[in-house]
Amino acid sequence: MMTTPVPVVETKLQAWERRAEWPLALAAVLFLAAYSVEVLATPAGAAAVAVRIVSIASWLMFVVDYAVRLCLADQRWRWFSRHLFDLAIVALPVLRHLRLLRLVTLITVLNRAVGHAIRGRVVMYTVGGAVLLVYVASLAVLQNERGYPGAQITHFGEALWWAMTTITTVGYGDLTPVSPTGRVIAVLLMIGGISLLGSITATLASWIVQRVADEDTAARVVTTEHIDVLVTEIQELRAEVRRLGGSSRPRDGLDG
Amino acid sequence: MMTTPVPVVETKLQAWERRAEWPLALAAVLFLAAYSVEVLATPAGAAAVAVRIVSIASWLMFVVDYAVRLCLADQRWRWFSRHLFDLAIVALPVLRHLRLLRLVTLITVLNRAVGHAIRGRVVMYTVGGAVLLVYVASLAVLQNERGYPGAQITHFGEALWWAMTTITTVGYGDLTPVSPTGRVIAVLLMIGGISLLGSITATLASWIVQRVADEDTAARVVTTEHIDVLVTEIQELRAEVRRLGGSSRPRDGLDG
Amino acid sequence: MMTTPVPVVETKLQAWERRAEWPLALAAVLFLAAYSVEVLATPAGAAAVAVRIVSIASWLMFVVDYAVRLCLADQRWRWFSRHLFDLAIVALPVLRHLRLLRLVTLITVLNRAVGHAIRGRVVMYTVGGAVLLVYVASLAVLQNERGYPGAQITHFGEALWWAMTTITTVGYGDLTPVSPTGRVIAVLLMIGGISLLGSITATLASWIVQRVADEDTAARVVTTEHIDVLVTEIQELRAEVRRLGGSSRPRDGLDG
Amino acid sequence: MMTTPVPVVETKLQAWERRAEWPLALAAVLFLAAYSVEVLATPAGAAAVAVRIVSIASWLMFVVDYAVRLCLADQRWRWFSRHLFDLAIVALPVLRHLRLLRLVTLITVLNRAVGHAIRGRVVMYTVGGAVLLVYVASLAVLQNERGYPGAQITHFGEALWWAMTTITTVGYGDLTPVSPTGRVIAVLLMIGGISLLGSITATLASWIVQRVADEDTAARVVTTEHIDVLVTEIQELRAEVRRLGGSSRPRDGLDG
Repeated sequence: MMTTPVPVVETKLQAWERRAEWPLALAAVLFLAAYSVEVLATPAGAAAVAVRIVSIASWLMFVVDYAVRLCLADQRWRWFSRHLFDLAIVALPVLRHLRLLRLVTLITVLNRAVGHAIRGRVVMYTVGGAVLLVYVASLAVLQNERGYPGAQITHFGEALWWAMTTITTVGYGDLTPVSPTGRVIAVLLMIGGISLLGSITATLASWIVQRVADEDTAARVVTTEHIDVLVTEIQELRAEVRRLGGSSRPRDGLDG
Repeated sequence: MMTTPVPVVETKLQAWERRAEWPLALAAVLFLAAYSVEVLATPAGAAAVAVRIVSIASWLMFVVDYAVRLCLADQRWRWFSRHLFDLAIVALPVLRHLRLLRLVTLITVLNRAVGHAIRGRVVMYTVGGAVLLVYVASLAVLQNERGYPGAQITHFGEALWWAMTTITTVGYGDLTPVSPTGRVIAVLLMIGGISLLGSITATLASWIVQRVADEDTAARVVTTEHIDVLVTEIQELRAEVRRLGGSSRPRDGLDG
Repeated sequence: MMTTPVPVVETKLQAWERRAEWPLALAAVLFLAAYSVEVLATPAGAAAVAVRIVSIASWLMFVVDYAVRLCLADQRWRWFSRHLFDLAIVALPVLRHLRLLRLVTLITVLNRAVGHAIRGRVVMYTVGGAVLLVYVASLAVLQNERGYPGAQITHFGEALWWAMTTITTVGYGDLTPVSPTGRVIAVLLMIGGISLLGSITATLASWIVQRVADEDTAARVVTTEHIDVLVTEIQELRAEVRRLGGSSRPRDGLDG
Repeated sequence: MMTTPVPVVETKLQAWERRAEWPLALAAVLFLAAYSVEVLATPAGAAAVAVRIVSIASWLMFVVDYAVRLCLADQRWRWFSRHLFDLAIVALPVLRHLRLLRLVTLITVLNRAVGHAIRGRVVMYTVGGAVLLVYVASLAVLQNERGYPGAQITHFGEALWWAMTTITTVGYGDLTPVSPTGRVIAVLLMIGGISLLGSITATLASWIVQRVADEDTAARVVTTEHIDVLVTEIQELRAEVRRLGGSSRPRDGLDG
């Protein structure tokens, strides 16, 4: 049921992907840091150049990773056509925030502490994803709204407040984005919000269903363990019958 | 469990319905295209006439389909009284958007790619239905609000933005419909929204419940496969007992 | 699992309750009609008197029902202390809308058409309850807001629109109640809204969980039917062993 | 499955915790009462001093409890590092509201009336927690907004109304907090709101899933009781086979 690949002999591509995992997570962290500074501190002069360099460096790491994986692939055209998404987040600036998906590597490590319980992992990804989504959406909305005529969201505090009212589907409407890009980001946040709601409810429902089943011993569902007990019982019975047959059959010499 | 009808001998009505499926889906697409052009481009002169013709042509396809099915039915009055909904979406202009339900044919085809997994199909219909609902509701609200005094929704972008805040139940209230028809459309969108939320949550809950059950082998629920193993065990035991009986009974001649 | 009481010998109290069921449902309908006319038509003169009479008549039916039940009860003090809620909805004007709970009798009849499937009944009560709640809340809010200074909800159409945005938790905020009573009604509607959402989601989740289980025969859960098959198999085996024993035992005369 | 600790020999620390449970619940009630009076009545002079004393007294009870538990712990550093949260709610004024978590003791007592059914307990904690959260958030928002320039929430009634629209995720936006602290409280209330929604839905889903399973006897899931019946059947069969063997084996003297 687990989907961790267990390759018998690791191909060169798989070896690269394993080794590139952490550098790419680092690249995502660098990109997030550079983007945060760019939006929040609006640096000028040398600082702006430094931020720009960090941003480009993190992008280059993704470019290199894409190029190396394309080279190492056995069937390049097949690999290319199956990894159009990887190409898109490298080539299209509008999708650059999706590089942050690499931070899933960090959540995976946190998950090791939590253990392999499916509900624990769902909670982890839900909380981690929601926090990251609110933070990045706040930054992105602030960047796009700030300069727009008639904008209501002009500080990071306001952006965070707006993002929280949106992802929880409360939607006061005291602050709303007015620029087209800001509204696209808002729609993504809303979709994130109903997924968040769904995820919390589903985890709780699964937990309650299990607890209710555990609660009443009489209603406890039969597991394969019980069936093993039954099979053992029947096999012992067969052994007994065979012994009985063994004790009577030789005497008769009918099927000796 | 599947509800695809498998008629042994196809009646004329069933043959027609099978053959009419795709033309009607096409009629729905034509209707959607004509409606989109009508609302978004507000064509004048020859263009308006062309749009009108396409719209009427798609309507005629539904009229013909209804008439043919009524003629082919064995018991016409019974068929008539059981297909009042079909009559309504053909005869009442206010229900004309419901003809788009025929687009379910397209989703069904996409589903074939996804496979028959129930959760995959639920996700497909949820996403497909939500996208179509948002698009059509945006068009319809725009058409009804545009000319109304004090209207806030006057562009398609605004209509889409409003539809997204409504279906996700965020409801900022920065733009709200003011015409009675616009508010009826909004109510339908809200009902669609809570169904969307319910559908997403339910799919996630079902997925988590299954994963939790799969996760722990000790807690794995017994399936009919396990029972088959048991039955085989017992049948082999009976065979052994019968052989044993066969070896002793003839000797005694008691129940020969 | 069903909770329909099946009394062996009906007491006088039970006989009365069974016979009073339909008159009380009628009283609830009368009350709803009178209340609707009172709020929507704001009648004057003779019409107002007529509405008042109908309203009082429906109330009297509840008073008579309460009095008769109190008289017929075996242990009056015990019955009194356990039916404080019944007393409250008869004696306190502020709780008079709760008499509409008697309309559950009507939903129960509709349910008979739907059958006894639990999900069908949940859907029925959810839809029926939501429609009634929206209608009554609209009337009540309109009555309380209309005359309040600074009121935004002054027509029934606006009241309905506001009730729909509230129960779906969309909450545009274009119209909000400002009177204290109006806000109490709004809070009840919000609580109804989150219950509605929960009910829809839960019904869908239950449906999907069942469909997923049905879908894959290999994963089908073992039912008591399968166990019956097993028990039959074992009993036949026992019969065979007994026959075998019967054929050998008499001959040996050991346990004759 | 229950998590009530049943220590064989109670340590001094456990004895203290058991005895301190009720006084700390009382301290939480005192703190809530003092806070309510402080915010709602804004007392002056001697009354303000009295409220201050009650507030400090309730705080001292938590300080004493923390100190005693630290002293009684076997491995003090380990206990200290594992109870940083306890230290935080005692030492940091900003977290003082979290002392109200001690009121869980009261809900636990109410639960004893409800019984040990898991769904009953979930409903209890959900309702109890929601009511307390709305009340405390209303007080806290009122205290923080009241004096803030441009504040919209200036009376307790408004604060309660705003808290209800927020926790149900309706979010009209007619009243919104404008101070930073007020917005932090609002975010906590929103998170409480989506948890409330999740909790209600999950409880309903669990209830429906169970009712659906109960409804159809043919579909009833096999429980350990059924397996016990099977095991008994097989054991009786084995006894019969053994008796049969006993009746034939001695005669043959093959296995003594």
